[in-house]
Order: sequence, then C-alpha cells, then structure tokens
Amino acid sequence: MSATNRQIRLAARPVGDVKPEDWERRSVPVEEPGPGQFAGRTLVISLDPAMRGWLDDRPSYLPPVGLGEVMRAGSVIEVTASNHPDYRPGDHVVGTFGVQEYVVSDGKGAMKVDTSLAPPSTYLGALGMPGMTAYFGLLDVGALKDGETVVVSGAAGAVGSLVGQIAKAKGCRVVGIAGGPEKCALLTGELGFDAAIDYRAEDVRKALRREAPDGIDVYFDNVGGDILDAALTRLAMHARVVICGAISQYNNSTPVQGPSNYLTLLVRRARMEGFVVFDYAKRYAEAARDIAGWIQDGRIKVKEHVVKGTVDDFPDTLQMLFRGENIGKLVLELT
Amino acid sequence: MSATNRQIRLAARPVGDVKPEDWERRSVPVEEPGPGQFAGRTLVISLDPAMRGWLDDRPSYLPPVGLGEVMRAGSVIEVTASNHPDYRPGDHVVGTFGVQEYVVSDGKGAMKVDTSLAPPSTYLGALGMPGMTAYFGLLDVGALKDGETVVVSGAAGAVGSLVGQIAKAKGCRVVGIAGGPEKCALLTGELGFDAAIDYRAEDVRKALRREAPDGIDVYFDNVGGDILDAALTRLAMHARVVICGAISQYNNSTPVQGPSNYLTLLVRRARMEGFVVFDYAKRYAEAARDIAGWIQDGRIKVKEHVVKGTVDDFPDTLQMLFRGENIGKLVLELT
Repeated sequence: MSATNRQIRLAARPVGDVKPEDWERRSVPVEEPGPGQFAGRTLVISLDPAMRGWLDDRPSYLPPVGLGEVMRAGSVIEVTASNHPDYRPGDHVVGTFGVQEYVVSDGKGAMKVDTSLAPPSTYLGALGMPGMTAYFGLLDVGALKDGETVVVSGAAGAVGSLVGQIAKAKGCRVVGIAGGPEKCALLTGELGFDAAIDYRAEDVRKALRREAPDGIDVYFDNVGGDILDAALTRLAMHARVVICGAISQYNNSTPVQGPSNYLTLLVRRARMEGFVVFDYAKRYAEAARDIAGWIQDGRIKVKEHVVKGTVDDFPDTLQMLFRGENIGKLVLELT
Repeated sequence: MSATNRQIRLAARPVGDVKPEDWERRSVPVEEPGPGQFAGRTLVISLDPAMRGWLDDRPSYLPPVGLGEVMRAGSVIEVTASNHPDYRPGDHVVGTFGVQEYVVSDGKGAMKVDTSLAPPSTYLGALGMPGMTAYFGLLDVGALKDGETVVVSGAAGAVGSLVGQIAKAKGCRVVGIAGGPEKCALLTGELGFDAAIDYRAEDVRKALRREAPDGIDVYFDNVGGDILDAALTRLAMHARVVICGAISQYNNSTPVQGPSNYLTLLVRRARMEGFVVFDYAKRYAEAARDIAGWIQDGRIKVKEHVVKGTVDDFPDTLQMLFRGENIGKLVLELT
C-alpha cells in the first residue's frame, strides 16, 4: 500500500475545452479514518458529461468544484479500515469520493453495493446515476406511455443507451441518434433499437421524418444544439421533450445555442422539461430493482467503456466524452 | 346598404414585415344568405399577433390563409337577414368571419353574444380569444398557485394585461414587462400590477433580479427573443414557462432566436410548455363566467384600443401590433 494518495485537483476554471493545465496532479499522505469514519481504496471512477458544468463558476444544481479542490466524481471503493458501524473492510461502497486513490468518508451519501450481483462499474452505470437518470427522465419527466415513439440523442452513451432499452422494455418504438456507424450498428443490433440515425452521415431532420413518420412522443435530449432543433420539428401532439443534458454545448466559449424551433412547442401543445436526478433519491431503490430485473431477463444489455489506468489518466479520459469516443458508460478502472 | 362587400385578401406571402403590396383590397357583390345561413354586417374586427403566423405557408395549428383568400379574423357582426333557426336580424354574433364588411355564415364556430352586458369589442378581447388565452394559459398550462410570483411579457397587450390581472385576482405577485413609460404606468396604476419593467429603458435581467428576488414561478411569454432569455435566468425551482407567442420574432426573415438560456430548465427543474387556446373550447363558458365576474367586481379592467375606420384600414392597423403601438386589445371598429 502506497503511503501517498494521488489526487486530481482543479487548478483553473476552463474556458471552452478543458486543457491539461486546468488540472493539478497532487500526492498527499494517505489519511487514517477518524471516529465514525471509514477508509478505502478507489477501484473505479465515473466520468460524466455533467462534470464539465461542475467546473464553471456559475449557479447550478450543485456548487462548482472549488479551485484547488479534489475533482468531484462518483466512484466505487473497497473499504480498507473502518471506525463506522455500518462498514467493514472488504465492503464495496459507491459514493461521491472524488478523483483520488484513497478515500476517507463518514458515509454521507455513500451506499454499500453487492459486487457479487454486478461488477463495481455497473454501480456507476446502469445501477448508478446514469441508470437513475434514464429511468426517471424517461418514465417520470417524459411520462412515457406504452407504444409511443421515443427518440434519444447521445444514444450510445451511458444514459442514452439505457433510455432506449428501457423504452423498448416498455413496448415503444425507439430511434437513437449517435455519431458514427459503429455506434449505430450497436444500437440497432445488440441493443435492439428500431432505428439509428448517424448524425455525422445524414441530415437528422430528414432521417427523423423517415424514422418517426407519426412524430416523436418523447424526445430525450442529451446533446442540445442542432440535433435538439431537428427533433423539435418532428414533435407529435402533446409531446414531451426531456432536457437531460447538452453535451454539444458544454465546451462552448460562446453562448449556448438556443433551440430556434422552440415555437413548435406551441403548435404541438408540447412541453420541454428539465430535471436533476438527485430529486428522485427516495425512489432510487425502485428504479434499481426494475433495471436489475431487465438486466437479468436480457432486456437491458449493460454497455461499459472501461479505461484501465491511474488517476493521472482522468483528464485525458474525460475528454473522450466530448469527442464522442466512448460507447456506453465511461469509467476509469484503477490498476 | 351598399351593394358591394369590401374585403381584404392576402395577395402575397410576406417575407419579414408585412408590406402594403401583400394585401389586395377587393369589392365583391354582397351575398344573400342561402338555406340554413344568415347574413350580417361587420361591426368590429379583431387584430391579433397570431395573424402574422397565419400568413406563412408552413405547418401550424391552423392552415395558412390561402393566397387570394379573405384574411382570417375574428369579428362581431350584426345579423341583417337569416334563414338559420338560431339567428335573427339584430342579433350580435362573434365568429371567424374575416376582414370584410358583409358576411354570410352557416353559424359554424359562431356564437351569439349579449351586447347589453358588454360592448361588441369585449367579445373579441377579455370575453373572447385573448381572455380565454390568458385564463387557460395561466391557470391550466401555467398551473398557477395562489401567492406565486408571475411575470408576463407583452404585459400591456390584449392577453398580457389580462394575465396580470387574473394573477392578481389569484393573490399573486405580478410583474409586467412592456415597452415605454406610458404602458408601464398603466400596469402599476390602473391595472394593479406590483411592478412594471420598461424593456426599452432598462436591463430586463437586472430588473427581474430586483422585482422577482425569489425567482419567477410562472413566466407567461408573449414576445420571445431576449426577454424570454432574461426571464429564464430568473426561474424559481419547478417554474412553469408558458409559451403563448413570440411577437418579437414573427417578422424575422432570419431564423427565430432560440432561448439560449434553456438549460436553466434543467437547473431549476422547470418546464416550458406551449398551448393553443382552441383546445379549451369546451371550457370557454367556465372562463367567460370567471372573467365576467372579475370585470363586474372591478378586479379586471378591460383595456381596448379601438381604431375607427373601414376594412381598408386593416393592413395599417395590423402593423401597430408589431410596432407596440396598442395598449390593450386592438380592434378595428367599422364606421
């Protein structure tokens, strides 16, 4: 066991793309757990598009990561020592433990997970925040009804791949929008989507006319920009547009591109609604039970993109999200 | 009685601002009512921002006005002859009778009104479509709750002036956004708004920070553009943004300006929703009863901007809406 804890800290607020010099790699002594605390070793770290927003100093659903602070991240750790009554060495725990090799926690916001049922990474993906986000965004905010037409952007990503599969489990027609033939083949192949649109290769508006001829009932948006605008032109009456994210806009140094076609909300008596998954914390167990069931019966295939390395690889790995290089949930597994 | 019926017809599809040559003034013979029809003389014609949208050849909630067709408009007529069992000479009737002096109708979409209770123009305003729009937009789409903070743009217009007054009747804090000191004085004076923001004289974002310090619960948007964007920055948690119109954008020959700040919907768990008042037709009587009651007890002051003239004045009068020259409901009264 190393005597030092390697950490990734925020060194500067990025403007536009996150640059290498916006991060600081720091080694600090490993801490011992105090009374009521436990200590652990990080196994796997989550990388999420939302992280880009946490780096900006502006009001949002969470305070920004402070300059000099360890980068906020979800991770799964293995408990190595404990003065906490609920945690014992060997336990696997998921929580917002940050981008670092070693962790000390009082257990706030943490949860023990059973890695005999699913590997640690899955508790950062289908059974973690992306799973909760897909489930409540689609079913609660999107108020999905059986048999409707669902379109999801960022469809090969952590959230998007689950949105589409949950919608299929609910008997819907599902169209995914993703970048590149490999992702599109995954969607209509292994993941069972009815259709996939490669936004790099074809005109999304025309493709939606073909694939959603009766209009879109629920559009689940992870990307914003031109794709959101294209989807707005194809809304069915009383459609719901779920605003989950806008990865195409996160690295803008210019203002966000607003949806020019928002007046179709009026014509189609439709709504566009945002949400933050934390608001559903009391219902996570319900969602996890449903998703675990769908994984078990094969209706949900878990897609994970595992990068193996050290915490030093976090900055480069994060950039993969914004270049669209991951398929499924992106995690950094510490070796 | 003139032997000719003067009409305003659409001659060309406007690009950007509506130009005089986009209209044709035509005189045709006055028609006699056929079996099951009645004939009438137009008393007063409604002018509405939505009319601009009806001139464009694109899918919307109503088909576009056809080239060469009489311009679509709501009006109140006096029946002059009738072969219809429900209408008698002397009856006043509101309907979509178009911009013309004389009308023949089978009564479809028409409704008799009692001009001893309110003048004909009011059946095009507070007791007509603008009244229904304000009522259902605010209470149903906006899901207004007592004591909330309501902000309305186009606040001195036909719909906006009613939205604010209905919200006041419901015990809310009401902030109106309008152009110019005269309109703002009307809002906080006669109409009882809590505050008014003159978008021509001050920074709307800063003014909203001052007037809605705890955030906006319901934002009722009639204008779009920069004002919508400013309002989005001030949403309270679980806010509702009601998209009623976007008069600032209707004469664009460039794409509509999308709301750059739409991601606040996510941060604030808020929704933006469009509607078309016709969907509430079955509940118009309920709304009219409430509004008539509020007019009677003085909680709603009816503001009408009456231009007196002939149907030939319709094109110029319509432009007043887009220049912000009307206060309250704009109508053309035929002399």
